[in-house]
Amino acid sequence: MSTPWLEQINWNVEGLVPVITQEAKSLKVLTHAWLNRDALEASVAENRAIYWSRSRQKLWRKGEESGYIQKMVDIYLDCDSDTVCFKVEQTGGIACHTGRESCFYLKFANGSWIEAEPVLRDPDEIYSSAEKSIDE
Amino acid sequence: MSTPWLEQINWNVEGLVPVITQEAKSLKVLTHAWLNRDALEASVAENRAIYWSRSRQKLWRKGEESGYIQKMVDIYLDCDSDTVCFKVEQTGGIACHTGRESCFYLKFANGSWIEAEPVLRDPDEIYSSAEKSIDE
Repeated sequence: MSTPWLEQINWNVEGLVPVITQEAKSLKVLTHAWLNRDALEASVAENRAIYWSRSRQKLWRKGEESGYIQKMVDIYLDCDSDTVCFKVEQTGGIACHTGRESCFYLKFANGSWIEAEPVLRDPDEIYSSAEKSIDE
Repeated sequence: MSTPWLEQINWNVEGLVPVITQEAKSLKVLTHAWLNRDALEASVAENRAIYWSRSRQKLWRKGEESGYIQKMVDIYLDCDSDTVCFKVEQTGGIACHTGRESCFYLKFANGSWIEAEPVLRDPDEIYSSAEKSIDE
């Protein structure tokens, strides 16, 4: 099947592009991850965020362990076609493996990074296996 | 001077990390770019967004050509310390070299990317030189 919309993307030398994921209603940035062609095509086909895990070298169906999937709302591409932005509905309101809403919870203040967001649920409760989805 | 807050960041093999820039009030994602240590340190020191241009291999003081600088409001780091998020006040309301508010103006719809945001100002008016700041 011809997929010119996939070919239009400027994949890097590794065949990847970064993806920013925002909560569709609040516009809060939840995560930053990576996509390859298969991940983006699967995200469109399954209407949920599916990333490429660089550390595990396989598709990463966000929420496959935690249950906190990201339902797709909209997909954007930037002006030079090398970065994608997902707008999603974050199931359970938790995107981060630390049990926080967003991965971006460290705020720069007076020369250091401080934790600026609460843990909403203990990660040990979220993940049944020892393997935490901390990688991308 | 000791800068443990810079050392805490997981710079990649090229000494870079990606940075997502959001408009502080609307939370709209404006751009996706890259930082090295010098760029992040300069962003903090000058209280404005300063990126590392990978194509030009030098610091890129956002707005140096267009005048549309990004005043720093807050800086965040993610859970695995390898992505930064800037919240900024976008001077002039235009972040994209195409004259749009945001670089993420291509929206996926029915199997193609459509232009989903208006051009607010003709780029030829914005940039006096032939060189457009399309790179990162």
